[in-house]
Amino acid sequence: MKIIVDAFGGDNAPLEIIKGSADAVKEYGVEILLVGSEKIIKETANENNISLDNMEIMDVEKVFLMEYDPATIIKQNNDTTMAMGLKALADNQGDAFVSAGSTGALVVGATFITKRIKGIKRGALATLMPSTEKPIMMLDVGANTECKPEYLHQFAVMGDIYMNKIMGYDSPRVALANIGTESNKGTDLQLESYKLMSEAKYNFTGNIEARDIPFGKADVIVCDGFTGNMILKMYEGVALAMAKRVKGLFKRNFLSLIAALLVKSGIDDFKKQMDYKEFGGAPILGISKPVIKAHGSSDAKSFKNAIRQAISFVEKDVINEIITNIK
Amino acid sequence: MKIIVDAFGGDNAPLEIIKGSADAVKEYGVEILLVGSEKIIKETANENNISLDNMEIMDVEKVFLMEYDPATIIKQNNDTTMAMGLKALADNQGDAFVSAGSTGALVVGATFITKRIKGIKRGALATLMPSTEKPIMMLDVGANTECKPEYLHQFAVMGDIYMNKIMGYDSPRVALANIGTESNKGTDLQLESYKLMSEAKYNFTGNIEARDIPFGKADVIVCDGFTGNMILKMYEGVALAMAKRVKGLFKRNFLSLIAALLVKSGIDDFKKQMDYKEFGGAPILGISKPVIKAHGSSDAKSFKNAIRQAISFVEKDVINEIITNIK
Repeated sequence: MKIIVDAFGGDNAPLEIIKGSADAVKEYGVEILLVGSEKIIKETANENNISLDNMEIMDVEKVFLMEYDPATIIKQNNDTTMAMGLKALADNQGDAFVSAGSTGALVVGATFITKRIKGIKRGALATLMPSTEKPIMMLDVGANTECKPEYLHQFAVMGDIYMNKIMGYDSPRVALANIGTESNKGTDLQLESYKLMSEAKYNFTGNIEARDIPFGKADVIVCDGFTGNMILKMYEGVALAMAKRVKGLFKRNFLSLIAALLVKSGIDDFKKQMDYKEFGGAPILGISKPVIKAHGSSDAKSFKNAIRQAISFVEKDVINEIITNIK
Repeated sequence: MKIIVDAFGGDNAPLEIIKGSADAVKEYGVEILLVGSEKIIKETANENNISLDNMEIMDVEKVFLMEYDPATIIKQNNDTTMAMGLKALADNQGDAFVSAGSTGALVVGATFITKRIKGIKRGALATLMPSTEKPIMMLDVGANTECKPEYLHQFAVMGDIYMNKIMGYDSPRVALANIGTESNKGTDLQLESYKLMSEAKYNFTGNIEARDIPFGKADVIVCDGFTGNMILKMYEGVALAMAKRVKGLFKRNFLSLIAALLVKSGIDDFKKQMDYKEFGGAPILGISKPVIKAHGSSDAKSFKNAIRQAISFVEKDVINEIITNIK
């Protein structure tokens, strides 16, 4: 298996990306195609003692910068590492593509360069999130700010398959994010999606209120990208704000410092559970090949996990499963 | 000043409502008009040793139940304690109305029985939320699932006045909830609202991402009621889920129990800061008289705080300030 990697995407590129890729080669026995300046990649590897064994390089100089308009990946910036990687994926030069670069550009590029699965109306950015029970998936979290009921239904089909195939959940509970649990709640989008989803083959458990999301009361949560972005970023924000306060608890005086030592292992477990780096990346579902968005601030470990996710995506044949179920 | 109280709204009615009202009479020197079954109110007061001094009773038997369709408050259920209280408010039998009953019915009832301020397109349910800095206001959090740019602008006008007059914030920072900080982010609603808000007199500081809300990076956050509901309930849900985990931290073994004792005062402060009961209720802004929604699970203390909020609402003459600024 060969994973195509955008070596120049994300805040810590190229060093952490190359390091994470090298670790993935060692740990998972996978081949990597690094897309980016051959000169810089070789220098970086050399300076940091990183082996480039089982890694090829596609020499591309130009990088898609965060401040570029995502739409420009199709024309003006179709010669960037991200665009060229997506093109290589479309041309079967590898089995999956991973980038920590601009989310918007990756969604647009995946849609128009690698292209959607036939019958899929919109690609969705899907993310795994922690819950008090087990990890849950939410989609869309930002690819489509406005959606139609059919899109949400298709997101549900794809999320269901992903959580079943990759996370091993048996008959995942699929829910619609809404302002109330009753079927008559929400805007036209929720009302009509509810009907459509009620008739589907997946295990639709109805509406879920935002309050119940962190408690893992559904395994797959579907919503439009605007709502998903709000939910995801509230999750991050509240968790960070509370972590800051909990930290403050332990920094008050000498006794509270002792308290911190007494519960250190608990705090470490807690941090690990809340750490997005453990979850790998966010798959863009609905694309004809596996495309994974790694977190923009990915370090080597986080990027390696995103590659692991890409490998599962390929191995579990998620794409063919989606093709079969979308007809 | 006389506050009209729905004695039969909320999970803990009538006991906690009557108790909270009696406490408000003692603490704030206010008069109360209790709306509800005179017989039950007198029995409850008697059995629990609650003084009914400075409280009148408007004898109304019927209660607006949570499962009723909110719209029925206008006709079929216009003889309930909530509807009769709102009518008494419209008829100047009191200065403000407080209820812990159905939010939907209170919004509909306030709009069609007590009526909106002239020029206000939609009433908004506004809520105070904690932040790592100081309390912030968000509106709308559920009165209007779908909004137009002009509504959001009016919400901003009202939120600005409320935070200035009642919370004493100097030139509150007003922001629009959005998926990015740039002015070209979001759906048509956000794009057009951004323009409208940029030209307004209040201190518009631009878009705010959900991640920054718990850190208090704006004082007034405006959004449609669907988005507001998602944000508010994610706030509650994540805070509860994390509190559960932090509690778990301290319950592991003997040492962690000692740790809990060492940081007890810190934990108590933390709980107090996160406790909605400290914040009183959620005002329905845009109505011609002050209407306050107390939390459905209000106890006496929480309800007393909602009455305190109603008193400020009247004293600070928020309604006239809105009338002046909405022209």
